[in-house]
Amino acid sequence: MILKLLFVGDIVGRAGRKALTDHLKGVVSHHQIDLVIANGENAAAGYGLTGPILKELFACGIDVVTSGNHIWDKKEIIPILDREHRLLRPANYPPGLPGRGTGVYETAGGIRVGVCNLEGRVFMKGLDCPFRAADLLIDELRQATSIILVDFHAEATSEKQALGYYLDGRVSAVIGTHTHVQTADEVILAGGTGFLTDVGMSGSQDAVIGNEKDAALERFLSQMPIRLEVAKNDPQLSAVVLTIDEDSGRCTQIERIQARF
Amino acid sequence: MILKLLFVGDIVGRAGRKALTDHLKGVVSHHQIDLVIANGENAAAGYGLTGPILKELFACGIDVVTSGNHIWDKKEIIPILDREHRLLRPANYPPGLPGRGTGVYETAGGIRVGVCNLEGRVFMKGLDCPFRAADLLIDELRQATSIILVDFHAEATSEKQALGYYLDGRVSAVIGTHTHVQTADEVILAGGTGFLTDVGMSGSQDAVIGNEKDAALERFLSQMPIRLEVAKNDPQLSAVVLTIDEDSGRCTQIERIQARF
Amino acid sequence: MILKLLFVGDIVGRAGRKALTDHLKGVVSHHQIDLVIANGENAAAGYGLTGPILKELFACGIDVVTSGNHIWDKKEIIPILDREHRLLRPANYPPGLPGRGTGVYETAGGIRVGVCNLEGRVFMKGLDCPFRAADLLIDELRQATSIILVDFHAEATSEKQALGYYLDGRVSAVIGTHTHVQTADEVILAGGTGFLTDVGMSGSQDAVIGNEKDAALERFLSQMPIRLEVAKNDPQLSAVVLTIDEDSGRCTQIERIQARF
Amino acid sequence: MILKLLFVGDIVGRAGRKALTDHLKGVVSHHQIDLVIANGENAAAGYGLTGPILKELFACGIDVVTSGNHIWDKKEIIPILDREHRLLRPANYPPGLPGRGTGVYETAGGIRVGVCNLEGRVFMKGLDCPFRAADLLIDELRQATSIILVDFHAEATSEKQALGYYLDGRVSAVIGTHTHVQTADEVILAGGTGFLTDVGMSGSQDAVIGNEKDAALERFLSQMPIRLEVAKNDPQLSAVVLTIDEDSGRCTQIERIQARF
Ligand SMILES: [Fe+2]
Ligand SMILES: [Fe+2]
Ligand SMILES: [Fe+2]
Ligand SMILES: [Fe+2]
Ligand SMILES: [Fe+2]
Ligand SMILES: [Fe+2]
Ligand SMILES: [Fe+2]
Ligand SMILES: [Fe+2]
Repeated sequence: MILKLLFVGDIVGRAGRKALTDHLKGVVSHHQIDLVIANGENAAAGYGLTGPILKELFACGIDVVTSGNHIWDKKEIIPILDREHRLLRPANYPPGLPGRGTGVYETAGGIRVGVCNLEGRVFMKGLDCPFRAADLLIDELRQATSIILVDFHAEATSEKQALGYYLDGRVSAVIGTHTHVQTADEVILAGGTGFLTDVGMSGSQDAVIGNEKDAALERFLSQMPIRLEVAKNDPQLSAVVLTIDEDSGRCTQIERIQARF
Repeated sequence: MILKLLFVGDIVGRAGRKALTDHLKGVVSHHQIDLVIANGENAAAGYGLTGPILKELFACGIDVVTSGNHIWDKKEIIPILDREHRLLRPANYPPGLPGRGTGVYETAGGIRVGVCNLEGRVFMKGLDCPFRAADLLIDELRQATSIILVDFHAEATSEKQALGYYLDGRVSAVIGTHTHVQTADEVILAGGTGFLTDVGMSGSQDAVIGNEKDAALERFLSQMPIRLEVAKNDPQLSAVVLTIDEDSGRCTQIERIQARF
Repeated sequence: MILKLLFVGDIVGRAGRKALTDHLKGVVSHHQIDLVIANGENAAAGYGLTGPILKELFACGIDVVTSGNHIWDKKEIIPILDREHRLLRPANYPPGLPGRGTGVYETAGGIRVGVCNLEGRVFMKGLDCPFRAADLLIDELRQATSIILVDFHAEATSEKQALGYYLDGRVSAVIGTHTHVQTADEVILAGGTGFLTDVGMSGSQDAVIGNEKDAALERFLSQMPIRLEVAKNDPQLSAVVLTIDEDSGRCTQIERIQARF
Repeated sequence: MILKLLFVGDIVGRAGRKALTDHLKGVVSHHQIDLVIANGENAAAGYGLTGPILKELFACGIDVVTSGNHIWDKKEIIPILDREHRLLRPANYPPGLPGRGTGVYETAGGIRVGVCNLEGRVFMKGLDCPFRAADLLIDELRQATSIILVDFHAEATSEKQALGYYLDGRVSAVIGTHTHVQTADEVILAGGTGFLTDVGMSGSQDAVIGNEKDAALERFLSQMPIRLEVAKNDPQLSAVVLTIDEDSGRCTQIERIQARF
C-alpha cells in the first residue's frame, strides 16, 4: 500500500492563507493526499502564528503545522505550543522551551506518520546540532512508525543537502523550508529518502520572498531597518507531494507543486 | 528577430568541466544558442580558475566566463583577469582591483550582448552596493546594446529577488548563481526581464553542492575546518535558456535546463 | 597651544543619561575640556534617539552627538537628522539618506574641530567601505581644520585597528564604539593619531553591555528573541580625553576614563 | 591561604612566543604566581599549534595551554590533543572529537586548579551551547576543586559578559580571549568570580591584532582573501593575575598586565 503526504512550504500572511483556504481541498482531493503538513512560521502577517490563525490553518485542511525561526515572534503562541500537539517548532532549540519538535499523527486510514522539525545553524542562530538531534529523534519516531517526514528549516543549501544524505534510509523525506523559493532538485536518494532543498513559500509571488517589493528594495538600498510588509497579490501555493511505501517507509515518488489560481 | 542566450551555473571542478566538454555543443545546437555565458568560479577543483582551465572552458564552447567570491582563490588567475576581456569578476569589488565586471560581446550574427557580473552582500563580504553598482553599469552597457544579462552571485533569496525587480525593464535577464542549487521560480517580470533566483551548479549531483559527501558531512558534524573535495560522480549541466527580442532586449521566454548524461 | 577633547562612548538609556547629567560638567571642568563629543545611539532606552533626549544630551554639556547602527531605531529622529547639524550618523550609509556623517564645530575659544562618524562592516551591515569613505571625508574636513576626531562604530577589533593605522597621520584620533566595553589599548600611533579600539559605553555596569542581566541571559540560554531591557543600576561614564596640538592636529596624550559615582 | 594564577592571552606567532620565553619567568617571580595558563591557539605563525611549539610553551613556564577556534588549523596537533592532558581545546565542540576541554592541575604547593575552555557562538561556529556545557563541566570540576578558571574564547562582548554573570559564584574567574585586544573592565562579580571580557593577545603590538598591517589593510581595502602574516615587532605580553582564596575559591583580586620589554 502507498501513502501520500502533502508538505506545504512557509505560509506567508493573508495571501498564503488565502491560497490554502481556497485551494488546499482541491489539491488534496486531486492528489489523494492522506496527510497534510504545512510550515506556518510566517502565517501571521509574516511574523509567527496566533491562536486564531492556527485554527484557520487546521480548518482549511492542514493536519500538522511545523515552523521555524519566526515561531517565537508572537508571544501569544507560546502557551499554545505546549498544549497543541499538532503544532511543532524546531526540535533543536535548548531543552526546557515550550513546545515540541516531533509528533506522530494518524491518517484517516489509521497509518501513523512521524514528523520532525529541525532548524539549521549556518547563517542562523546558535542552536543545538540538527544532525545529532535528528539521530536521537528519528530513533524515537521509528519506534512508532517507519514513515517519517523531516522539515529542515535552514538557509544554506549545503547544510540542507548534508542532512538529506545524513538521514537517507532512515526517514521517508527531508524537505527544506525557510528560503521561500522552491528549488528544482527533487530527488529520491539511494536509501529511499525523498529530498528537496526547499519547497518554497505559499504567499504572494509578486513580491520579494512574500514581502512587498517597495519596502524590501528600500531596505537593501538604504540599509535602514525598514519594516517589511507582507504582499497581497498573486498568491501561490508551493508544496511537494510525497508518495511513500507504507511498509518500508521509502519514498517512491516526489513531485513539486507550484499552484497559482 | 530573436536571440538565444545560454547561461550555465557555477562549473564545479572536473565533473563540471566534463559535463561541459561532453555536452555543451549538443545543447547549443539543440537550442540554437547564439552566445554561451558560464560562471566558472569553482572550475579549478572547486576553488577559482587557472589559465589552462579557462582555456578549456573557452575551447568547449563558452563565449564569456563570469565568476564570484571564489575568483581570487588561485593567485595565477589575477594577471589574466586584466588581459582576458572574456573573463569577468563581480563588478562591485572596490575600484582598482584586477579585472572587470562587465563586457560587451558579439554573437556570430553580429549582435551585441552586454554581460554584468555582481556579487551579493547578505551573508557574504563587505562589497560595494550591488544595486547602485548596477545602476551605473547598466546605464553604460545600454549605450552599446539593449540586450544585457546580469549574473548576480549571491546567497540570500531576498537580495536576489530584490535585484531582479530593481532591474526589471532595464536588462534582459537577472540570473542568480552561488547557492549551487537550481530554483524553480523562473519568471518574466512585468518589465520584460527574465529572472531566476539560482541557475544551479554544473558538476556532480551525487554530492553536497558539488563536494564529496563524506567530507561535507564530517564538517557539519565536527565543526572542524575539514577541507572539502570536489565530487566526481553523476555530472549534470545546470543552465537556463533565455530567448530575447533583439530590438527591445526583452526576454520572451526563459527555460531551465538540468541535463544529466 | 593645546586643545582637549572629551569623547564619551555609547550612552545607554536612562542610566547613561544620568551619568552624564550628574557628572559631565565635573569631568569637563576637571580635565579643562574644550569640546565634548558623545555617541548617543542607545540613549533612548537602548534603541536610538528622540528629539527630547537629544535636547537632554545637549543640555548636559555635550557639543556633538555621534551614533551608529541603532540611529534608525526611533523613526522620529529621522527629520531631526537633517536639520540638526550637531547630530551625526555614520557617513558610509548609502548616499541620499537623512542626516550627515561629518561636521566642523567650534570650541568656545574659536578652534575648529572636525568630527567624522563611520560604521564598520565586519559582522554588521552592507555599508559602503569605511576606509574609502574616510579618504574622501577626511580630505574635505582637512580643508577646514587639521583637528579631526573619527568615531568608528564597529564590532571587529581587526577592522578598528586597521582603520586606526589607515588614518594615522591624517586625523587627530580614531576612537572605536559599539562593543560597549572599554579596551585598554590606548596608543598614539607613529603619525600622531590617538587610537583606542573601544571607549566603552556609558550606562549601567551591573549589566550585560548595559542591558538587564536576566533578559540577556535568558536570550542566550533559550535562543528565543527575548526583548532586552536597559539596566538601571551602577551607572558609569566611559570616555577618553584627547590632548591635541592645535597647530599640527597631532594627539599628544590619550587618557581613558571610567568614572563611577 | 591565597593562590595566584597567571592567565596569558592568545600567543600570536614568534613574537608572542618570544615575549613569553624572555619574560614569563620574571612576571611569575614578581607576582609569585602558582600556576600559569595561556591560550596558544595562534602560537604557530598565527594558525594553531604544533608539537614542537607546544613543547616550547611548556618549556618557558606555561603549565596549561588552552585554545580556541584556531586549534584545528595544524593537523599535526590532533593526535597530541588526545595524549597531552595539559593542552585543552574548547569543550563545547561535538562529542567524540580529539582532545578535552577541562583538566585539573596541581600547583607546586599541591593545590588543585580546574581549568575549563569554552568557545562562543555569536559571530562564530555552530557549537554546543557554552552555557549548558559550563553547567555540566563546572559541576564535575567542583568535585575535585573549588578553584576553577574558565577561558571563554568568544567574539561578542555580550556573550562573554553573560557567561561571567552566569557562572558568578561557581568559578574563580571567567576570562575572555579571541579578540586579541585587552579590555579594561576587570571586575570581581557579586558572587566572587573574577571577570575580564578579554585579556588581549601576546604578540606584536605594532600590528592589526598581531598580524602585519600591510596585508591586513590590503584585505579590508580589496576584500580579496589576502593571506595574513604574523607581525614581528614590538612584542607584548598580555595577561591577568588572579588572586584566589584557596578555601572558598573566590577571587579576591584581579589585575591586568600589559608588559612590553
Ligand atoms: Fe519563512
Ligand atoms: Fe524562516
Ligand atoms: Fe560563490
Ligand atoms: Fe560557486
Ligand atoms: Fe551601542
Ligand atoms: Fe552599535
Ligand atoms: Fe586568537
Ligand atoms: Fe580565536
